[in-house]
Amino acid sequence: MTTQPMRTPTADGVARAAAKIAELLPQTPLLEAEVNGAKVWCKAESLQPIGAFKIRGAWHRLSDLSPEERARGVVGVSSGNHAQGVAWAAQRLGIAATIVMPVDAPQVKLDATRAMGANVVLYDRPGGEDRDAVAQRLIDQSGATLVHAYGDPWVIEGQGSAGIEIAAQMAARGLDGPSRIVVCCGGGGLAAGLALACPEAEIVPVEPEGWDDVARSLASGEIRRVAADAPPTACDALQTPATWPINFAILKERCAYGLSVTPAEVRAAQRFAFAKLHLVLEPGGAAALAAALAGKVALDGRTAIMLTGGNTDPESFARVLSGHD
Amino acid sequence: MTTQPMRTPTADGVARAAAKIAELLPQTPLLEAEVNGAKVWCKAESLQPIGAFKIRGAWHRLSDLSPEERARGVVGVSSGNHAQGVAWAAQRLGIAATIVMPVDAPQVKLDATRAMGANVVLYDRPGGEDRDAVAQRLIDQSGATLVHAYGDPWVIEGQGSAGIEIAAQMAARGLDGPSRIVVCCGGGGLAAGLALACPEAEIVPVEPEGWDDVARSLASGEIRRVAADAPPTACDALQTPATWPINFAILKERCAYGLSVTPAEVRAAQRFAFAKLHLVLEPGGAAALAAALAGKVALDGRTAIMLTGGNTDPESFARVLSGHD
Repeated sequence: MTTQPMRTPTADGVARAAAKIAELLPQTPLLEAEVNGAKVWCKAESLQPIGAFKIRGAWHRLSDLSPEERARGVVGVSSGNHAQGVAWAAQRLGIAATIVMPVDAPQVKLDATRAMGANVVLYDRPGGEDRDAVAQRLIDQSGATLVHAYGDPWVIEGQGSAGIEIAAQMAARGLDGPSRIVVCCGGGGLAAGLALACPEAEIVPVEPEGWDDVARSLASGEIRRVAADAPPTACDALQTPATWPINFAILKERCAYGLSVTPAEVRAAQRFAFAKLHLVLEPGGAAALAAALAGKVALDGRTAIMLTGGNTDPESFARVLSGHD
Repeated sequence: MTTQPMRTPTADGVARAAAKIAELLPQTPLLEAEVNGAKVWCKAESLQPIGAFKIRGAWHRLSDLSPEERARGVVGVSSGNHAQGVAWAAQRLGIAATIVMPVDAPQVKLDATRAMGANVVLYDRPGGEDRDAVAQRLIDQSGATLVHAYGDPWVIEGQGSAGIEIAAQMAARGLDGPSRIVVCCGGGGLAAGLALACPEAEIVPVEPEGWDDVARSLASGEIRRVAADAPPTACDALQTPATWPINFAILKERCAYGLSVTPAEVRAAQRFAFAKLHLVLEPGGAAALAAALAGKVALDGRTAIMLTGGNTDPESFARVLSGHD
C-alpha cells in the first residue's frame, strides 16, 4: 500500500472540513477545569456520537468521495474509534464499509462498529499480522477507497476541525485562542490537523509509555517505529506502530517534542475526569490529560487538552475507579 | 420558616435568568441518543461546573440580591447539588454562604461544597431532624437570605433556563422545541421552571420509588408528603419530603401525572449513559432517563430528557458498572 499522500493537507482544507462538520454535528463542549492550580480547557470529544473525535476525519473523507468512489465502497483500518467514525459516515451516506480491526480490540468497539452496518474483518495484531496488507487485499478485490486512520489528507484536515472549534469557543469567553494544545497521539492525524488549524499554538503530542514513536521521531528528526517488544498498554487507541510521512511532515515543523505517560498516570487522569468533569474517558482518550496532571506540561491558562475518546468496557472502567487496575 | 413565596415565578423571569446564565456559562450539550428505537434529546446538566443544573437557580437568586442582602450572606439547604450551586455563586459574588446539609450526604458533595468556601452545617436526616428549622435558626441569627433548593421563585426561574437552551438547541437542528420534557424530580424546582420555559411541552416529573410525593400530589390534587417509612434510595438528590405550594401551583396546571422508577431502573440508566453517552450520572441524575428506558414514557422524536447531575462516589459508580449494586 502506498504511503504517499494524494495531496498535502492544508489549513484551507481544515476550514472547509470545519464548515461541513458544523452543519452536521453540534460542537463538543470545551470544559474548564483546574489542573495543579492552573485553568485548562478540555475539549470533550468523547461526547461525539461515536464517542471519539474520529467522526470528523471520516466524515470529511467520505463526504468528499465522488459517486463512482462511493459505489465501490470504503475500507478502514482501526482499533475501534476510526472504525466507528467510518461506519457512522458510511451508514449516513449509504456507502458500503469494511473495517480491518485487531482481534484484541475492545468488545464495545467491535460491537458498535458492526451495529452501524460495517463489515468487520479481523487481523491478528498480537501475532504481528500486517493490517495494511490485509486492507490492501480487500482494496485490490473491490476497488474500494482506503480511509486510513491517520495517513490521509482528508482525515488530517477533518480532525483539525476540532481546533477551529476550540479557538471559537475560547474567543466566545473573551480569550485568545489556545497557546498550546496537548493531544493524545497514535499515528498523529489529530496532532497534525490541530497544527494546521491553530498555527499560533504549540502542539504537544502525548503517547503511552513504550509507544512513544512520535516523540522519538521528533527527537531524531526521522520516523521511528515502536519497538517490537513494546509493553502492553490499555491505550488501544494509541497503539500505532509508526506515524506516516504525511503526518510527520507537519509534526516535525510544529512539535518541539513529544511526551509519554505511564499506565498509572493514565488511570489517574481517568479518575480525575470522572470526579471533576463527570466524563467517561477511555485510557487512550485520557493520555493528554494525564500528561498535564503529572506536571509534564507547562500550563498558562490558555492550554487546551484534547479528551479524545470514551469507548471503554464497564468492567475496565470499574477497575480503574476502584483502584484495582 | 414561611412557605409563602415573596412573588410568583414567571416566564419573563425565566427569560431574564437565561440571559444572565448565557453570559456566565456555556450551554450544556443536548446529546442525541436512541432509546427503545426512538430518538431522544438528552440535556447533559451533569457537565455544569458543579456537576448539576443547580448552578442555574443559585446564580439567578444570588446575583439578584441587593448589596445589603449580599452583605448579610445566604443560607442554603441541600443534600449536595444545590449546596454546590449556592457555594459556587456565593464564591464568585463574594457572598458568605452557609449550607445546611444532611450528615449522610455523599462525601464528594460535602467535600466540593467546603472546597468552594462555604460553611457547612450538618443536620441529622436519618434521625428525622427538620432541616428547615435548622436553616431558620441560622437566618434568625444572621439576617441571611434563605436560598431554598426549590421553593423559591428565583430558583425556579433559574432552573427553567435549561428549557430555553433546549428549545434553542433543537431549533438549531431544524426541530420545533420539545414536545415533552422528562425530568428528575425532588421538590419540583426544575420541573416548575421548565414548565414556565416551555409552555408547549408536556412536563413529566420522575421520582424514585417510595419518594413519589409529587406523583401522588398530582394524582390527588393536593400536596402529599413522602411516607415516614420511605425506603432508602440511592437518589439522594431527589430525597425531598414534599413539594412546596409555589412549585405545586405550576405543576398541577402543567403535569398530568408523575412517574416513579425502581433502583434497578436507575442503575440501568446509569449504565446506559456510561456506554452510549460516555457520561457519569449520579443516581438521582439518571431518574428521567430510567423512566424512558423502562418504557414508561411515550417517545416521539421530540422528547427531551434531563440528565440532572453527575456527583457520585467512584466506589458507588464502580459497583453500578460491575452489576454488584
